[in-house]
Amino acid sequence: MFKLEGIYAPIPTPFINDEIAYDKLAENMKFWLGSKLAGIVVMGSNGEFVVLSPEEKRQLISKVCELAKGKKPVIAGTGCEYTKETIELTKYAAEAGAVAALVLSPNYYKRAMNDEIIKSFYLEVADASPIPIVLYNMPGNSGINLSAKLVAELAKHPNIIGVKDSGGNIVQIAEIIKNTPEEFAVFAGSASFLFPSLVLGATGGTLALANVLPNECAEVYELVKAGKYTEAKDLQLRLLDINNAVTARWGIGGLKAALEMQGLFGGEPRKPLKSLGAEDRKLLADILAKAKSN
Amino acid sequence: MFKLEGIYAPIPTPFINDEIAYDKLAENMKFWLGSKLAGIVVMGSNGEFVVLSPEEKRQLISKVCELAKGKKPVIAGTGCEYTKETIELTKYAAEAGAVAALVLSPNYYKRAMNDEIIKSFYLEVADASPIPIVLYNMPGNSGINLSAKLVAELAKHPNIIGVKDSGGNIVQIAEIIKNTPEEFAVFAGSASFLFPSLVLGATGGTLALANVLPNECAEVYELVKAGKYTEAKDLQLRLLDINNAVTARWGIGGLKAALEMQGLFGGEPRKPLKSLGAEDRKLLADILAKAKSN
Amino acid sequence: MFKLEGIYAPIPTPFINDEIAYDKLAENMKFWLGSKLAGIVVMGSNGEFVVLSPEEKRQLISKVCELAKGKKPVIAGTGCEYTKETIELTKYAAEAGAVAALVLSPNYYKRAMNDEIIKSFYLEVADASPIPIVLYNMPGNSGINLSAKLVAELAKHPNIIGVKDSGGNIVQIAEIIKNTPEEFAVFAGSASFLFPSLVLGATGGTLALANVLPNECAEVYELVKAGKYTEAKDLQLRLLDINNAVTARWGIGGLKAALEMQGLFGGEPRKPLKSLGAEDRKLLADILAKAKSN
Amino acid sequence: MFKLEGIYAPIPTPFINDEIAYDKLAENMKFWLGSKLAGIVVMGSNGEFVVLSPEEKRQLISKVCELAKGKKPVIAGTGCEYTKETIELTKYAAEAGAVAALVLSPNYYKRAMNDEIIKSFYLEVADASPIPIVLYNMPGNSGINLSAKLVAELAKHPNIIGVKDSGGNIVQIAEIIKNTPEEFAVFAGSASFLFPSLVLGATGGTLALANVLPNECAEVYELVKAGKYTEAKDLQLRLLDINNAVTARWGIGGLKAALEMQGLFGGEPRKPLKSLGAEDRKLLADILAKAKSN
Repeated sequence: MFKLEGIYAPIPTPFINDEIAYDKLAENMKFWLGSKLAGIVVMGSNGEFVVLSPEEKRQLISKVCELAKGKKPVIAGTGCEYTKETIELTKYAAEAGAVAALVLSPNYYKRAMNDEIIKSFYLEVADASPIPIVLYNMPGNSGINLSAKLVAELAKHPNIIGVKDSGGNIVQIAEIIKNTPEEFAVFAGSASFLFPSLVLGATGGTLALANVLPNECAEVYELVKAGKYTEAKDLQLRLLDINNAVTARWGIGGLKAALEMQGLFGGEPRKPLKSLGAEDRKLLADILAKAKSN
Repeated sequence: MFKLEGIYAPIPTPFINDEIAYDKLAENMKFWLGSKLAGIVVMGSNGEFVVLSPEEKRQLISKVCELAKGKKPVIAGTGCEYTKETIELTKYAAEAGAVAALVLSPNYYKRAMNDEIIKSFYLEVADASPIPIVLYNMPGNSGINLSAKLVAELAKHPNIIGVKDSGGNIVQIAEIIKNTPEEFAVFAGSASFLFPSLVLGATGGTLALANVLPNECAEVYELVKAGKYTEAKDLQLRLLDINNAVTARWGIGGLKAALEMQGLFGGEPRKPLKSLGAEDRKLLADILAKAKSN
Repeated sequence: MFKLEGIYAPIPTPFINDEIAYDKLAENMKFWLGSKLAGIVVMGSNGEFVVLSPEEKRQLISKVCELAKGKKPVIAGTGCEYTKETIELTKYAAEAGAVAALVLSPNYYKRAMNDEIIKSFYLEVADASPIPIVLYNMPGNSGINLSAKLVAELAKHPNIIGVKDSGGNIVQIAEIIKNTPEEFAVFAGSASFLFPSLVLGATGGTLALANVLPNECAEVYELVKAGKYTEAKDLQLRLLDINNAVTARWGIGGLKAALEMQGLFGGEPRKPLKSLGAEDRKLLADILAKAKSN
Repeated sequence: MFKLEGIYAPIPTPFINDEIAYDKLAENMKFWLGSKLAGIVVMGSNGEFVVLSPEEKRQLISKVCELAKGKKPVIAGTGCEYTKETIELTKYAAEAGAVAALVLSPNYYKRAMNDEIIKSFYLEVADASPIPIVLYNMPGNSGINLSAKLVAELAKHPNIIGVKDSGGNIVQIAEIIKNTPEEFAVFAGSASFLFPSLVLGATGGTLALANVLPNECAEVYELVKAGKYTEAKDLQLRLLDINNAVTARWGIGGLKAALEMQGLFGGEPRKPLKSLGAEDRKLLADILAKAKSN
């Protein structure tokens, strides 16, 4: 069975005139597939999945799987607000070649999403899915936290193989690691807490920053594996500011601008999100330069 | 121009075997169209718009407009995560006969949704829309609050005619009323704070409870208009528990169960939302009975 | 028994060189005692009770009771983190002549303060107190909310006669009014939601703004009692900005500056709180002028 | 100058019949002074400092310094709501023999406590204090977070030597470590995130659990210093549940019960806090046993 480990990049979706630019995607993919990344996540939060139509979602998954075929595994984000729609998209992703599905739970009706409802959702999806399910905890966007207790219960399902935790609560991450079986994978959801997660037993991460600096992110992982904790810590601290720049501070606009600075295609996010202005680009360039210089 | 006032019901979407049951919708509509309601809101939060496909959204808007034609005005919920998609759906709603669009702002990328981005979204939609726009503030579901300052700025746009505020912050509602022109309409978003909103100058409300007890909700409005504040207050207090039952406590499952108790079609919400269990139905029936008895 | 109704001013404590300036207090008290206020609250949040030593607290209570004797009732804030200390201070206040005690619940150990603990605290204090207890809900400072359910339970105690709710959740205020006996008094804790609270059945309020504009605040109360809701509403809206200025926006520094603009003694708060700078004073003066002009 | 490193126990205050039991304190101190702890913190949150009178605070500080003299350093918690009172208590602690002061910032007037006010507070205290100041970030109790940016600014003051961060935001801890000088000490404020903090460069911790299991907590520290990360991690995971039991789950009542299970004096907290009931004691005993068994 597929094993979740190493560093994955949750790739952004390139747009030209508001249409998905598949040629630019192919160029970017070459870079990521040639890097030290363990794999690719298509349709994560950084992939702007919430602004894609059902058809675009399918096309995008297919295209990314095709480009990565034989090179690196692809995990597809397939969570929707509706259980049935999630299952259908997950089945589609399986056929397209995704090795696993990263599933965000429904989150619009926040007050209704108690542990019992969330659990029923994940169990039903996991039962129906031909590929393994990775839980996706993303409280910053969803407004919902998957507690350590809930994750530990869901980890008992044979088709739920791990969790990507983007909340950054390190105690929760430790509790999940403690209370789930050895083979259940815990993934850091942001480069800002990658190193402390790894030393606690996380097996990797899915990191916005891995799109921009895939090898540096992978190096944190390799250093920890090699027992070089001090070097890993130093690199972790060096990556804090650039990670903040392409996530909390400037979001997807910042991420796409940073890609451009790395010679990749960035482009504009779909509105109302905006691309970075000239002044912020200058700030970002400085931050990126500092992160790259030892 | 269309004037936003009185009590609107944000109607739930009836499903049978997960498909929209248009015959049941027609039956329910007869009840609402024959009531004291001022109008109908299709595709509000209670309409489960987040689980409808793009095609279902269009069909549902068309059907509701058709059923209401010549009887009561229909406002369509058209907010999406993507500006362009919101504009297209709004244009569709206009052609289908909706008198206005109730527009929730994009909310998945919460940290990115600062006032500037939200403002740009609403202005672009308002510029492009053939029908007037009603702002929809729904922090409980969206995790984002449209501040009084932001609403006052948006109120200057000639095609933005009002706000539905579901947050229930009465000071914010008072500030919006104070800082917007006389003709800008403020609508209470829940029956639980309808009366205090009306006495402060709100012109009506869009209320989940109005689906179940349309005439009672309309009576609060009429009593205030008639200056009968004490009677209005007594009725407001009487409606608190049943309102809580069909919103915060049991959500859409509770709302649909209450419809059934009123002789209407309720049915199941789309999963993972659930319909009410037997025990909760008994509790709900008691609460409903108390609300109906003077 | 003492009946809680009308508008109370939670008076600030005047300091000169960090010492309580009792002569200035006496001057200010003349103004408040000569106004339309129903009574005085000493040692509320605006009284900076958290920076007073145990001796200062006792002296201040005694002095205010003495000054008000035969003129207006005094309610003393006596809540401490420790039950026994709260009881002792409450007994002291009773002997000094306070007609009731306004009691904030302990709040430093927020996670420990569940409903059961808070209930045990209030019941023990109410049992031991020679004067009636008024619950004080102040989530903005305490980080703890006294729920409608908890207040309704506590309202059964014969020596708990009311609640001052400063949270401003109008639905909670409505629920408290609905679920407590007629003789249990609900007080608005801020002028910003005084009018909607009164129309729902609140019997008055304890308002920072009542220190600055006692008669205007009292007028909102009188207009509602006289059934003049439209005038009351207009006055409520007029008072929003000045209320915000002396609470959320500039806090106690703003309140003391506004007192000075009204010809009273303001002075500096104890550090680290600060008095208002020159620029903010100009803004405040404009806001105050607007609030006073019809 | 005093260097902040290793594991400190923030000792609870023993009460018998609501009075501080100094004989029991002396017994407990023998245990802690004979352990691998680096030092003692008196009047931390676990010391119930908020329910002690000014005289009790002074007596307690003196007594603990006396008992520890020549054995282990004592840090005294001296934060009050009032700058002047904080300075006076800090000076007292210095004379009594405390090597440093752990200072919580004022927090009742939460909205007023912006970075500028908090900064002015700490700078004034640091200027006036004869002993070094350790910042105390305790958002769970205070409702206020000292941001990484603010801590980095305060770290420039020569008399501010470190921070105890109890918030547990590991990214914030990493940012503080990155942005403060080498000699500025970062202390973990809870055993639940001790290990990840240490690997990022924290120099120790002040941990409720260190009262109960001082040597186990110290061992995490020593293992990290010795580069034995895997053993440290395993021990960290083993300590999660017992740490939760004596903090979030059962608070000070749980901590005192656990002390009793270790043969120390626990006793009751001051009301309204409660000691643990029989059923919870059984659960706690199991959790403690598991933490102690390898």
